[in-house]
Amino acid sequence: MERKKIAIIGVGLIGGSLAIQLHEKKLSSRLIGVESSPEHAAKALELELVDEVLPLEEAIASADVIILAIPVDSMVSLLPSVMDKIDRQMVLDLGSTKSQLVEVISHHPKRGRFCATHPMWGTEYSGPAAAVKGAYENKAVILCNPEQTDEDVLDWVKHMFAKIGMRQLVMEAKAHDLHAAYVSHISHITSFALANTVLEKEKEENAIFELASAGFESTVRLAKSNPAMWVPIFLQNKVNILDVLNEHIEQLKKFRDSIRDDKTEELRTLIEDANKIRRIIK
Amino acid sequence: MERKKIAIIGVGLIGGSLAIQLHEKKLSSRLIGVESSPEHAAKALELELVDEVLPLEEAIASADVIILAIPVDSMVSLLPSVMDKIDRQMVLDLGSTKSQLVEVISHHPKRGRFCATHPMWGTEYSGPAAAVKGAYENKAVILCNPEQTDEDVLDWVKHMFAKIGMRQLVMEAKAHDLHAAYVSHISHITSFALANTVLEKEKEENAIFELASAGFESTVRLAKSNPAMWVPIFLQNKVNILDVLNEHIEQLKKFRDSIRDDKTEELRTLIEDANKIRRIIK
Repeated sequence: MERKKIAIIGVGLIGGSLAIQLHEKKLSSRLIGVESSPEHAAKALELELVDEVLPLEEAIASADVIILAIPVDSMVSLLPSVMDKIDRQMVLDLGSTKSQLVEVISHHPKRGRFCATHPMWGTEYSGPAAAVKGAYENKAVILCNPEQTDEDVLDWVKHMFAKIGMRQLVMEAKAHDLHAAYVSHISHITSFALANTVLEKEKEENAIFELASAGFESTVRLAKSNPAMWVPIFLQNKVNILDVLNEHIEQLKKFRDSIRDDKTEELRTLIEDANKIRRIIK
Repeated sequence: MERKKIAIIGVGLIGGSLAIQLHEKKLSSRLIGVESSPEHAAKALELELVDEVLPLEEAIASADVIILAIPVDSMVSLLPSVMDKIDRQMVLDLGSTKSQLVEVISHHPKRGRFCATHPMWGTEYSGPAAAVKGAYENKAVILCNPEQTDEDVLDWVKHMFAKIGMRQLVMEAKAHDLHAAYVSHISHITSFALANTVLEKEKEENAIFELASAGFESTVRLAKSNPAMWVPIFLQNKVNILDVLNEHIEQLKKFRDSIRDDKTEELRTLIEDANKIRRIIK
């Protein structure tokens, strides 16, 4: 397929990493960044993640494809006005929640020009300096409600993710949010809460620094993640997240009670149950 | 220093990985394994982790140094009888809890021949096949209550860990157990409980497999850990673990309540507090 002029709204971890791939895989003829933060705009240019930075309206007018990679609350408020401004351009988003987003434009006259996607990749860092090469390769991407997207848009989106080397799955937006709560969002909450627990109990920061093993680091790593990205995700997906978070608190209480009451066999069974994750995560 | 004949009681992940280092750093003239599992004994010989496998009494009689690397409940029951059987040999353990162990031999006539140590390294795997090269390098090791250990024993133990490339810290046994609960044991409980949460809620295992990102994998990795090792750790260190686990449940409830009540600013503050872990964990 022909290379496209692509505008990326939000050139941070997610948008910046995609920009690198779009260029490397010869999918873009020109990359245009849109950035609300002047520091991020300057950094994105310095790192050559994009060819130029333009105001939103100009970027939309000069692009063939518009990709939104901003926090999911901004996404929901910005997407309808982006759709208002386009002609025949294609629009896609890379956000971590989908129900509210597809709902807010479900009756938009240009709904067909939009494709909702969620590439399952991220790190605990943020901003353009956090963008990495090869980020999305061999990862999964979810296309939500593709039956609402025009065929030519869907064809290009599938072509783009295939060239980047992503496994593509189709999911209804509500199902996406449910699974994302279980497999991604809850991990971030447990990691944030673990960091707060240890910072609360372990007053000797030097002890954390000296003693922290690879195990501690891996469970607490996500606690470095950016609130601007995660607060809106937790609030938009609150029903699913509250459900899984309540279950998690119950599971922790089972550990607590069996330790407190010296129930060796119960404790062993709880751990053996947890070991079943080996079947799924190698 | 002269190379030693070293007996390793328990040639699994921890003992087997140390055996590799003892040989590589020319600390051992001969490595003798003691194994209650015939399969592990055969595997340890096949992998050449040890030169021979002997029954406990013979191993003690022919060794200069005896290293215990078995679950901490077996450690507490076995150590006094090992101390009964030695003459002038040196004994050390590599266990994850220390208070009960130093208590149980505090009045032993040969107490000075023993040194309590905790190298801060491990993985979620177990058994001799899980032993890895270079495991302990650049990690911390804690020496507990060294004032109760004879000088010649302490000298060799320090020499050994220094040659392996470990940072050595001294800590009182009770302080060790407190810090270990905060910085290691709680991470394992949260990971086990997260695995059980997701396995309970996410009935579509295929969805976990397809969608699980690096973030999920890192928070749930420790859930593969061996119950034979971890049940006794949790029970021996129950006072400290219950304390930090109750705090963790409270921290999770703060996240739950602020999400449930749409308290955006509170949620942002909770995450910003968690971000402070960046100061400590790079």
